Amino acid sequence: MGASESKNQSLPLSHSGGKRDEELILPLNSSLSVTLHQEQLKTTTTAAISKDFTEDRVWLNGQEQDTGQLRLQACLQEIRRLARKRRSAQDGDMLPLSLSYKVHVASVNSFPTAAGLASSAAGYACLAYTLARVYGVDSDLSEVARRGSGSACRSLYGGFVEWQMGQQADGKDSVARQVAPESHWPELRILILVVSADKKPTSSTAGMQASVDTSALLRFRAEAVVPARMAEMARCIRERDFCGFAQLTMKDSNQFHATCLDTFPPICYLNDTSRHIMQLVHRFNTHHGDTKAAYTFDAGPNAVIFTLDDTVAEFLAAVKHSFPPESNGDTFLKGLPVRPVPLSDELKAALAMEPVPGGVRYVIATQVGPGPQVLDDPHTHLLGLDGLPKLAA
Amino acid sequence: MGASESKNQSLPLSHSGGKRDEELILPLNSSLSVTLHQEQLKTTTTAAISKDFTEDRVWLNGQEQDTGQLRLQACLQEIRRLARKRRSAQDGDMLPLSLSYKVHVASVNSFPTAAGLASSAAGYACLAYTLARVYGVDSDLSEVARRGSGSACRSLYGGFVEWQMGQQADGKDSVARQVAPESHWPELRILILVVSADKKPTSSTAGMQASVDTSALLRFRAEAVVPARMAEMARCIRERDFCGFAQLTMKDSNQFHATCLDTFPPICYLNDTSRHIMQLVHRFNTHHGDTKAAYTFDAGPNAVIFTLDDTVAEFLAAVKHSFPPESNGDTFLKGLPVRPVPLSDELKAALAMEPVPGGVRYVIATQVGPGPQVLDDPHTHLLGLDGLPKLAA
Repeated sequence: MGASESKNQSLPLSHSGGKRDEELILPLNSSLSVTLHQEQLKTTTTAAISKDFTEDRVWLNGQEQDTGQLRLQACLQEIRRLARKRRSAQDGDMLPLSLSYKVHVASVNSFPTAAGLASSAAGYACLAYTLARVYGVDSDLSEVARRGSGSACRSLYGGFVEWQMGQQADGKDSVARQVAPESHWPELRILILVVSADKKPTSSTAGMQASVDTSALLRFRAEAVVPARMAEMARCIRERDFCGFAQLTMKDSNQFHATCLDTFPPICYLNDTSRHIMQLVHRFNTHHGDTKAAYTFDAGPNAVIFTLDDTVAEFLAAVKHSFPPESNGDTFLKGLPVRPVPLSDELKAALAMEPVPGGVRYVIATQVGPGPQVLDDPHTHLLGLDGLPKLAA
Repeated sequence: MGASESKNQSLPLSHSGGKRDEELILPLNSSLSVTLHQEQLKTTTTAAISKDFTEDRVWLNGQEQDTGQLRLQACLQEIRRLARKRRSAQDGDMLPLSLSYKVHVASVNSFPTAAGLASSAAGYACLAYTLARVYGVDSDLSEVARRGSGSACRSLYGGFVEWQMGQQADGKDSVARQVAPESHWPELRILILVVSADKKPTSSTAGMQASVDTSALLRFRAEAVVPARMAEMARCIRERDFCGFAQLTMKDSNQFHATCLDTFPPICYLNDTSRHIMQLVHRFNTHHGDTKAAYTFDAGPNAVIFTLDDTVAEFLAAVKHSFPPESNGDTFLKGLPVRPVPLSDELKAALAMEPVPGGVRYVIATQVGPGPQVLDDPHTHLLGLDGLPKLAA
């Protein structure tokens, strides 16, 4: 048995929000994401192949999955195709394990699955990376990851990553490229405000297809708005222009959710708490006379806040003031430690909000992180020597 | 003293959502509205002029208003201009009262003011109509009403009314025209689901200006989407095509709110209850395999539902099931009587909603109605013989 394992997670800065080819998973527009540090949020995946396995099997968070799923099949086919290509190119039997061996995969998220926290992006990126190790593939994995979940190709790299939409019909040029490494902007802090860990009512894949089919605003956005914004966002990142970065991030999030609402029937990922958080950010910035925090929302009500290290403590105090923790005061903040600071009366008055106790369930503080990492310690592997999940054992 | 009084109210079917000229109140696109029956929702206005009045005074719902407001001033100036024009055209002193006399106006809404129920449209239409009677003006009042509140020009007519955006810079061709009279579609029923009677946080005038300034989607919508939809909506009304009418109404509402969300900072008129109502309508229609109900939202969370007389009872039962009345079971339904019907278990299952008690505070059932009406009974007048509001006396 050959096994490998990796971990990864990332979140969008600008939204792809629709595909031009549903089977190959080619987007309507390019997009940008930031990879989060795995110390705080991660997907861990173990893959193993063996002549003793009789079928491909996949476990997600301990639950066995249907391997007949088209996207899973597409990933497996693509990685085996790349492995065959590599073997034939090297003109010899370099790989000790047969490509016909079945694979077992176990994957665990350290955060809620299908709650609009890009769980499938992290999952498929991790899967692609892990399978590549097992099958000895070292070429670009964008396509393998993309066939599982479009935005997964961005999660193959650390730091700030662009998914170039590409122009070719076969999608060979629809790949991820790093815009800046994780070390580029060390002051940047990320707070994930978990509003709800419920599964979202609309899967983002089904939602995006409905948007492409019915929203006139979506196509206009993809063609007329996004290209200039992408270039501007890359400039803001390169120059570490937080104000520009923050405003673009918020505008892109709002426009993505506007196209969801313009879909028919409409898709609403934001709820009243999401909107309270948006208002909180705008009032926080107005109070400071400067854009010191930004929100973005993916396919769910949870907010991702960007701010800088000199502001994160005050912003967190504003969140606690507006959404008083109900019973979990001690566990309200997870991830990076944030030194508590008092909130000024002026800022309290500027927020002008009726507190919503429990509106934010907890906060994860994190920062920009590296791409997928190999875990060599066998104790962290999710599959036992028998090829079955340790969790389920 | 000369006095006159009228009543009126209407709601948009398609949204103007932005102005190309803020002072003249010229819209970015044409729009359509339906005038509601005054038996259920109305604005009542009394105006009087007298040589004894020392200044222009206005009372709204018993509260004296600042007559220095630009829009009020614009209305008064415009009606006096039309009155002078008429008098000089008729080459004689036809009017018994001097144009230099000051005016007293009292206006009362039978529904919550500034809660996104088009209170200012109804108010300014009524004001224009009443002032025209007092000053003896019988020309087109579109401009008088429009200068007060753009959409008010649509409320000058009964039935289904189009506000033609016009092309001229001076706005002379930006006028309201009746598409079909109130008798045209007698089966149409309208339910107003009052979610909140709170004043909205963003006035629709300020909100729309921010949208024009910041939303790329708004301009695209006005130029590329609305013209075809307006023509199609007029066709649906003429042919009494409920399914087409309903779908367009929902799509236009969603797209208007999408442009609000694309505004920066974003504007959110819809809340969680609004979204529950949208979901209820879509599930109701899916259950029937036919579009039998439609929602539209103006600048607030309250829903306006369109349906037909053979469906209104079942839809109301679905609303009561999803939003159980808290303590006001007897007064939950106002306006037109609706015979209670039981809800089938199949429909209950199809709604698949966790009931939200009190989410909808009450429902007003109404139908399409005529334009402004003159009230001749002096007992209904809002101003006493002393020219002061009876309410305040």
